[in-house]
Amino acid sequence: MIEVECYISIKRNGISFLDPVKTRLLSEIKESGSLNGAAKKLEISYQHAWTMINEMNNAAPEPLVSKQRGGAHGGGAVVTSYGEKILKDYFAINSQVNKVVGQINVEINL
Amino acid sequence: MIEVECYISIKRNGISFLDPVKTRLLSEIKESGSLNGAAKKLEISYQHAWTMINEMNNAAPEPLVSKQRGGAHGGGAVVTSYGEKILKDYFAINSQVNKVVGQINVEINL
Repeated sequence: MIEVECYISIKRNGISFLDPVKTRLLSEIKESGSLNGAAKKLEISYQHAWTMINEMNNAAPEPLVSKQRGGAHGGGAVVTSYGEKILKDYFAINSQVNKVVGQINVEINL
Repeated sequence: MIEVECYISIKRNGISFLDPVKTRLLSEIKESGSLNGAAKKLEISYQHAWTMINEMNNAAPEPLVSKQRGGAHGGGAVVTSYGEKILKDYFAINSQVNKVVGQINVEINL
């Protein structure tokens, strides 16, 4: 089966701060309340998760995650209210674009 | 400036065989007529370019590139007629989806 897929990225000054992997990381941080738990769900290292968060926070207009280093569970991480807003926007845009992509998948014959 | 971008991928049985980097590789092969030249334009190694072509050819319903190993210029590579067709389809889909994304960029206030 041949299928078109679309990946949305949100950039500031040409640098991406939100993409499918990063939105998954944010969603998992919200769910588990810990960066360690989120990293495990994504099957990436804790260090990799930190790196992604630093990239996001540095590139975005405001931090998406507030970080609390250390603690028994490898540091707390909380999605900020700006992070919540942009995550919601991301999913709305993704849904809007994927309606078009879904229509293309019905129409095309690749 | 905050901007939404969209990356199109074409998959067969869940495995991507065409994405922005691979379409660039195909376009450069068409332009230069050599895999070596295309790899240089993309700033990737010759081996990396071969790997991408093998991935594409294996995942797609038909080969996108026909390969001629060896020769003075590091092997010839020719985009097949199927490769030409799917590349054209890719750009048409990309343009259609990006019209919607362009409209979103006008309307949103992230």
